[in-house]
Amino acid sequence: MNIGLDMMGGDFAPLEAVKGLQLYMQNNDHAASLFCIGDEAQVGPLLEENGLNAPNIRLVHAPEVIGYHEHPTKALKEKQRSSIAIGFHLLATGKIDAFVSAGNTGAMLVGAMFTIKAVEGVLRPTISTVMPKLNGGTGLILDAGLNADCKPEQLNQFAILGSLYAQWMLNIDNPKVGLMNVGEEEGKGNLVTQSTYPVLKENTRINFIGNIEGRDLFNDKADVIVCDGFTGNIILKMAESVYDIATQRGYGSDAYFTRFHYENYGGTPVLGIAKPVIIGHGISEARAFKNMIHEAEKMIQTGLCAKIAEQFSA
Amino acid sequence: MNIGLDMMGGDFAPLEAVKGLQLYMQNNDHAASLFCIGDEAQVGPLLEENGLNAPNIRLVHAPEVIGYHEHPTKALKEKQRSSIAIGFHLLATGKIDAFVSAGNTGAMLVGAMFTIKAVEGVLRPTISTVMPKLNGGTGLILDAGLNADCKPEQLNQFAILGSLYAQWMLNIDNPKVGLMNVGEEEGKGNLVTQSTYPVLKENTRINFIGNIEGRDLFNDKADVIVCDGFTGNIILKMAESVYDIATQRGYGSDAYFTRFHYENYGGTPVLGIAKPVIIGHGISEARAFKNMIHEAEKMIQTGLCAKIAEQFSA
Repeated sequence: MNIGLDMMGGDFAPLEAVKGLQLYMQNNDHAASLFCIGDEAQVGPLLEENGLNAPNIRLVHAPEVIGYHEHPTKALKEKQRSSIAIGFHLLATGKIDAFVSAGNTGAMLVGAMFTIKAVEGVLRPTISTVMPKLNGGTGLILDAGLNADCKPEQLNQFAILGSLYAQWMLNIDNPKVGLMNVGEEEGKGNLVTQSTYPVLKENTRINFIGNIEGRDLFNDKADVIVCDGFTGNIILKMAESVYDIATQRGYGSDAYFTRFHYENYGGTPVLGIAKPVIIGHGISEARAFKNMIHEAEKMIQTGLCAKIAEQFSA
Repeated sequence: MNIGLDMMGGDFAPLEAVKGLQLYMQNNDHAASLFCIGDEAQVGPLLEENGLNAPNIRLVHAPEVIGYHEHPTKALKEKQRSSIAIGFHLLATGKIDAFVSAGNTGAMLVGAMFTIKAVEGVLRPTISTVMPKLNGGTGLILDAGLNADCKPEQLNQFAILGSLYAQWMLNIDNPKVGLMNVGEEEGKGNLVTQSTYPVLKENTRINFIGNIEGRDLFNDKADVIVCDGFTGNIILKMAESVYDIATQRGYGSDAYFTRFHYENYGGTPVLGIAKPVIIGHGISEARAFKNMIHEAEKMIQTGLCAKIAEQFSA
């Protein structure tokens, strides 16, 4: 199994990408070969210095970098020798089985949707984020910001995509799906959630448990929380701020609050596209990179994308 | 100044309402006469037992109660001798200057909107909630759940209503208004926030500082946070759960987390209606009742409703 790692993505690239790779290699259970995509002159010596010269690590030269503020579509088109463009090329042509980057999020999404493409039947790919539950478990919320406005049928598909992710990646059997809403009863909500409830209720492929509320994000009511990307993005950023608040109040080492730190979950998979693509936080450091590689590895091992394609073709 | 207090509203009524009143009376700065609206047989002895027989406390008999699960409009119509119906009647006829209840929220809103009515020019009244800032300050978020779907012009009015509340009730000079969104730049967001941004930008009556994100809820970027009631209600309930999490993790006495507890801010005013109406949490205990009475007192003293009417007639 081959994983492509963008060495040039993220605020602390390439050093933290290299260190993350080192952490990954130090683990006994590393199974993948790594394609390190980046500027040879910068990345080569760093790999060398950090003892990363195993046969399963190879450097793929990418002389260009897509910056944070570049226009995604334009940059991907014009910088074909950038680490992100090369990563998607390798993924599309089957040289690698997954692509991981903490670079320009927009460019990653454009690459995922236009170079790799959505699974047939998927209306809109989505991104998700995990939510640490108070009981020690992990929930998933999607969409986390890719699709600001959503139609009921899209939310219904997110419920299926999220359920598959929860089942195969988080090992949750028959995951409970909740619709993020402002009241428990059917009929509550805004126009979109009011129309979405009956669609989810009729979907026999998911374990729909009804509406959940803002207070249920961290309890055990639902494993998969479905909402539009506007709502999901606000929740995600608010949850991230809980970690910052806890730290500022002196509880940064609390076992629960620590789980809100993005480093611990690594990156965000783009769900609903044909191959594994994982997007990292711009501020990713070593541990986040390591976790993203593990996540990519697991997506390949479980065959998640094939399972998604199967569901949507049925 | 006369304040009507629904003695029968809330899970722990009438006892906690009585105790809240007692706390209020123990304060040196109590300025209001209280109309205690409730069942004479239940409330009378409790007032007596708790030494609440001052001349500025009078009991108004209301033999009926609107329960939590009753249909608001139907209940208000059929139970004209309920504490909520009598409260609104007293407010509408000028016998009291503000009405406070922790009873059936729907009935309170129906009463506020149909017995008291919206200020002329206000498209939709709104409810708000306060957000404790890390720097010790207090922000306001609205709508907190009354209007799930909102049009840009409604959000623009919420910005004005929230600014007036922040200025007069929270003593914030020239309050900064932020639009709750998923990115900082103009153009980001869902269809509603994209169309709302330019409307807020052009409004010279508010101090619009642009978009804010989920991570900015507790920092000092904005004093007044504008969003639709769907978003606001999820944020509000998520913020309330922060207090529960902190308590469960053993930090319940932390000075900052404590400020997330609903008791400390009392109740939610219905903004945009002609007279002061404050709705309490169903689980209100003594301190919440006391704070709601103080809030009503301040709304009367500052003449907030008149200031709102002035703005909307200009």
